[in-house]
Amino acid sequence: MKTYLDCYPCFMDQALRAGRMATSDENQLKEILDAVAGLIKDFPPDKTPPQMGESIYRTVKEITGVKDPYRELKKANIKEALSLYPDLKKTLIESEDRLLTAVRMSIAGNVIDLGINREFDLVRDISNILKQDFAISHFTLFKERLAKAGSVMYIGDNAGESVFDRILIEEMGKPVTYVVREIPIINDVTREDAIDSGLHRVAEIISSGTTAPGTILGLCSDAFKERFYHADLIISKGQGNYEGLSGTDRCVFFMLKAKCKIIANDLGVKEGDIVLKGINLT
Amino acid sequence: MKTYLDCYPCFMDQALRAGRMATSDENQLKEILDAVAGLIKDFPPDKTPPQMGESIYRTVKEITGVKDPYRELKKANIKEALSLYPDLKKTLIESEDRLLTAVRMSIAGNVIDLGINREFDLVRDISNILKQDFAISHFTLFKERLAKAGSVMYIGDNAGESVFDRILIEEMGKPVTYVVREIPIINDVTREDAIDSGLHRVAEIISSGTTAPGTILGLCSDAFKERFYHADLIISKGQGNYEGLSGTDRCVFFMLKAKCKIIANDLGVKEGDIVLKGINLT
Repeated sequence: MKTYLDCYPCFMDQALRAGRMATSDENQLKEILDAVAGLIKDFPPDKTPPQMGESIYRTVKEITGVKDPYRELKKANIKEALSLYPDLKKTLIESEDRLLTAVRMSIAGNVIDLGINREFDLVRDISNILKQDFAISHFTLFKERLAKAGSVMYIGDNAGESVFDRILIEEMGKPVTYVVREIPIINDVTREDAIDSGLHRVAEIISSGTTAPGTILGLCSDAFKERFYHADLIISKGQGNYEGLSGTDRCVFFMLKAKCKIIANDLGVKEGDIVLKGINLT
Repeated sequence: MKTYLDCYPCFMDQALRAGRMATSDENQLKEILDAVAGLIKDFPPDKTPPQMGESIYRTVKEITGVKDPYRELKKANIKEALSLYPDLKKTLIESEDRLLTAVRMSIAGNVIDLGINREFDLVRDISNILKQDFAISHFTLFKERLAKAGSVMYIGDNAGESVFDRILIEEMGKPVTYVVREIPIINDVTREDAIDSGLHRVAEIISSGTTAPGTILGLCSDAFKERFYHADLIISKGQGNYEGLSGTDRCVFFMLKAKCKIIANDLGVKEGDIVLKGINLT
């Protein structure tokens, strides 16, 4: 996805929010805003928003010296998600269409997003999403492709959401490669977070090699790209991965909740909608 | 008022909103955002937000060539306000405390603000504000000072709001100098708007000489400053004038609705609160 005009003010918002996670020093925060304003000036709209995200969080790190400002929050989110896991599994087992319910649960986990200026209430939001209609649903196609796939590449998004990903991975019953970010960025899932979520017990965990809060192939490692281009089935979770991968020529199933108006518009849905969208299906 | 950290992302928002009032050309809009990002980088927090406002709207004008993008909206707002004028006068005459009701009406008019990212419904908002409690009210002091004043300097804010200002000016029954902006900026009231609102019939209209969306004394004409420093009583309407004048050593009565969190915090009130606050009262 290209960078829309409305993304530029939002970059400044992100810079301030990320900065405040790392420091309360007003001078450092002004320095971060100045630096990000300088970056915005030269950022072309044909790059994707997570590329700017990468620069913003690198700037925060360089100026404050804090490498992982979201560490404690990520731990807390994983802990909360794990506490819900047994009940979710129970709901899943009792559900009419287990795969569909698992997909919904995985999307429900996508409410855990600290890069967005929005609060969430995990229990309430999950309960709503389990009943919410899809704005786009390619579930039947997804189910067909899954049945034929020898293995699945599953690109994770946020820490905590990763526990919900585990539920879908367990339900799919296929060998899965779970893709994490190379280094901590916002609350995106890293190898450590994936292990804390128990994903190492149900999937092979690999890094995309990227330091951006989204999967931008140009910034990913060759090893990851090799696997991406040869994967049987690709699931991409969340907005950052959608922003990075919406232009790919590979078949990808995006699962996400549209949490910002710009991404909702790009998808042709409304803010707050849930989406299971496959691209390049032919 | 100084520029707070949260004002910087808001400047980018303002740039985009103002740009879109003047053009729908995406390249021009990106050029505006780039230019404003460049300005933000060098904008020190000890300057007031309307100083940046001035630069933003000047940038929009320079890049798009559109001198007064809010012209039609201002005309429409004045027309709507004038259509309410007879009923408001009737309500005023029937009210228990006419001066207090006129102050409330003048503050109610302050909901007409196109510089803020917020929609308004004039009839509904006025009706609410006429019943709303003041978060800060120096009304008794204001009434005392008004009784003693030979004349009043009344610093206007927005076009349309100017019609509500007229109601208070008529009710005060003192010679009034009504202060307008030198040139069109956002929907701020200019001489032409003041005349369209009928203010020339109840006050002398003068310009502050400023091209900023607020009264920053350093940017005002010497002629205005001379009168400001010798005024018996000064009323300052709205946020932009508060931002410019909150640091003055003159006695000023600010009348406004706090429409942004940052200004509300600076005043020690909540967003949405209405305020009649006098400073330098001793």
